[in-house]
Amino acid sequence: MSQYEISALKQELTGLAMVDDPRLVRQKSRDFFWYSPVLKRQLDHVSGDLVVTPRNEAEVIRVLKACYAQGVPVTPRGAGTGNYGQAMPLSGGVVLNLAEMRAVREIGEGRVVTEPGAIIAKIDEETRAHSRQEMRMFPSTYRTASIGGFIGGGSGGVGSITWGGLRDFGNVLRLRIVTMEAEPRQLELTGEDLHKVMHAYGTNGIITEVEAPLAPAYDWTEVIVGFDDFMTGARYANDLARQDGILKKLITPIAAPTPHDYLSRDHSFARRDQSVVLLMIAPHAMDAFLTFHQRATGNAAAGGKSEILFRSDKTTEEERKNLPPVYELAWNHTTLCARRVERDITYLQVLYPFPGQLELIEKIHKHFGDEVPAHLEFVRFDGDITCFGLPLVHFSDEKRLEEIMTIHEDMGAPIFNPHRFTLEEGGMKQTDAVQLAFKREADPRGLLNPGKMIAWDDPEFDYSSQKTYLFPGMQSAE
Amino acid sequence: MSQYEISALKQELTGLAMVDDPRLVRQKSRDFFWYSPVLKRQLDHVSGDLVVTPRNEAEVIRVLKACYAQGVPVTPRGAGTGNYGQAMPLSGGVVLNLAEMRAVREIGEGRVVTEPGAIIAKIDEETRAHSRQEMRMFPSTYRTASIGGFIGGGSGGVGSITWGGLRDFGNVLRLRIVTMEAEPRQLELTGEDLHKVMHAYGTNGIITEVEAPLAPAYDWTEVIVGFDDFMTGARYANDLARQDGILKKLITPIAAPTPHDYLSRDHSFARRDQSVVLLMIAPHAMDAFLTFHQRATGNAAAGGKSEILFRSDKTTEEERKNLPPVYELAWNHTTLCARRVERDITYLQVLYPFPGQLELIEKIHKHFGDEVPAHLEFVRFDGDITCFGLPLVHFSDEKRLEEIMTIHEDMGAPIFNPHRFTLEEGGMKQTDAVQLAFKREADPRGLLNPGKMIAWDDPEFDYSSQKTYLFPGMQSAE
Repeated sequence: MSQYEISALKQELTGLAMVDDPRLVRQKSRDFFWYSPVLKRQLDHVSGDLVVTPRNEAEVIRVLKACYAQGVPVTPRGAGTGNYGQAMPLSGGVVLNLAEMRAVREIGEGRVVTEPGAIIAKIDEETRAHSRQEMRMFPSTYRTASIGGFIGGGSGGVGSITWGGLRDFGNVLRLRIVTMEAEPRQLELTGEDLHKVMHAYGTNGIITEVEAPLAPAYDWTEVIVGFDDFMTGARYANDLARQDGILKKLITPIAAPTPHDYLSRDHSFARRDQSVVLLMIAPHAMDAFLTFHQRATGNAAAGGKSEILFRSDKTTEEERKNLPPVYELAWNHTTLCARRVERDITYLQVLYPFPGQLELIEKIHKHFGDEVPAHLEFVRFDGDITCFGLPLVHFSDEKRLEEIMTIHEDMGAPIFNPHRFTLEEGGMKQTDAVQLAFKREADPRGLLNPGKMIAWDDPEFDYSSQKTYLFPGMQSAE
Repeated sequence: MSQYEISALKQELTGLAMVDDPRLVRQKSRDFFWYSPVLKRQLDHVSGDLVVTPRNEAEVIRVLKACYAQGVPVTPRGAGTGNYGQAMPLSGGVVLNLAEMRAVREIGEGRVVTEPGAIIAKIDEETRAHSRQEMRMFPSTYRTASIGGFIGGGSGGVGSITWGGLRDFGNVLRLRIVTMEAEPRQLELTGEDLHKVMHAYGTNGIITEVEAPLAPAYDWTEVIVGFDDFMTGARYANDLARQDGILKKLITPIAAPTPHDYLSRDHSFARRDQSVVLLMIAPHAMDAFLTFHQRATGNAAAGGKSEILFRSDKTTEEERKNLPPVYELAWNHTTLCARRVERDITYLQVLYPFPGQLELIEKIHKHFGDEVPAHLEFVRFDGDITCFGLPLVHFSDEKRLEEIMTIHEDMGAPIFNPHRFTLEEGGMKQTDAVQLAFKREADPRGLLNPGKMIAWDDPEFDYSSQKTYLFPGMQSAE
């Protein structure tokens, strides 16, 4: 049980929207952490004590001030679509549900200003209607994810093939945050300062306003290309990614039999032995894309046959209504779709460094065979074209999962471990000095999303030890 | 003199706008070939016999049909801003001046349809007013060049840092051409077929309509950054080019003393020993750019000081009126500006292949010193970030100029020779089989822009001979 009196806090927060029904609180204390069997084991019991849903920044400040005074942890939450337990309150306390702060405040040329809880697809609806603009990038949870959650806990997604990742200068313009202090401060962060709170899981400030860049909106044409041979598809994807004049938003190779076995609930496009590449292409680039396609696949002898299995511009509106958008087969949705069919499936997050990405992919997947079905996402990364892997893994046990990751790293493919709930273990495996220093300023009592930043709790933690960090403040399973 | 009767042709073309005053015809028979002392020597005497200015495609067809019947050469001309004698009628005949076919016919999302003589800046005026869109790329002669001339004889320019070159799939969507036959045909070319006539100098068809892709229009912020050391500027430019989240349209490093000596007629920004990088940055990317700048130049010890010398967003509209746009200091305008001050200056066109571009630039410019002042243009090239060089050359004689080019190629930097008027010698030094085959179809009598395609006149020409092609049909100097 908690060391603080929730009842006193509730008293303090009278007038705010609060929920303390344990069943509902537990619901709002979870995200998509169950993608990982490791996180599922570690975090399944986690729950906050109280969900507070502020309607505006003034109410956020009221909550933080009260919680600071009473020593109550606060874990911010957008739409709860993260995969690493980002939004899960490991030490209980308040779940700060920002879903009602969802206004799109201002749209300009190349810019939009929103509240943190705005759903990304809803932002796009408004910016499209306003001036045919849209977000540069979004997660596959586009239709449910909040922009604040994406920036606080995501790294990129659909659109990263053109714009790189969220962490790149220019992909977030400004963040307004509120600090967790006796007198919470409102800070406007731009430039270098953005990195203090981006991808920090809300451990060092609560985002109350986002300014993000916009790109021109297009009615992207969805295309699915089938390949008899996965590596032929991967090479095709790599070549298409390198076509500077063809505007695209998604390039996703997925190895057989995943498309047939796991992605065909609505679409039934692929034979069981067929690999696919999922694409989103700007309508005015379709001629050029088809020219590329013809040239790339003209020489059938090179690696088995290829064929265009689906083109959204050749379907009726009626037909499209019954199909998921192609991005809901890509990025983390590939894993989600697979888990709907086989519950033992989990995944990895891999970087295949440029320029040896294709050779490395071939080597790694040859090594693992059917245990680790390939799934790639092409992106711009520090100025080069390369790809991430989000391979599926048929889970046997945690030891083997660790082994699979170690083999990847030994072969030269860094892992961003999605089976850890801490920032450091999921990311760079080292202290982020900037985020730590900022936490000292913005959350001196360490009450924001406790347990997610190892550097705060255990500065001596040895990342090379191969041990998983055990957060001592974690609420115990009942 | 001509082997054909111009008077009979004039008779035939009664009702069309024609000029035969030799002084005016000579004026319209020239382009910016005089950038090259070699072309100046070879082509200075060249002139057509008659300038015909059609107002529409029907009139183009009338001209071609009549000229075909009478065996009169036809050389198309846009605005005459090319640098290789593209628009110069080597065997005399008709100069087909397309400047009056300048309508912008249709603007859609991501697309514009225009006549060939439309001035690129004028197209942008209309597309910006219509839907805040603009051309993806343009030459530094933006305010005077025609879109047909750019596609028929250009290769890229301002915007290529984002979109690659004109030759890349997707950077031209459709071309309508008229053939040079007894009964001229109108053909619509898309996809792979575009390459039949792009960068063919009008040797195998007359472009009568262009469909080009559009990008979102921004009021680009111009920035000039000064560096004590050129290579520090080049590395800075390379790093900025690789920033995927910072939207930019121009990245141009120019070595001292060019900025001070040749580019300061209106701007007076640089000390004589100061190199510069010219930039065009999207307004909503300025914060991110300044963050990049701060980080990139924070460590002054690394290579001398740097400073932002000019920001268009910090000037008044009044001040900007007296300044040329920054793109008129870049690409081929750098050479133009230099020649305004020193008439012995010419230039080269160099590719520094990825990924060794910076090392190669340093090596080459160390070798040549002040004889070949560095000027780089960063671009996307086949999926990578690298740069072209458009170095200035203090011309001594043609032998030395050839030697300088040979040294570049020997050191690993391919030259696109701007001192040749033929397609092959200026480009890939080999027959373009596609363009040649299409010329056989579209210009069976070889009357379109004679002398520009070696493969047509002399299929046996030996490109490795180091000899310049001598076109036998060239009109003799008086």
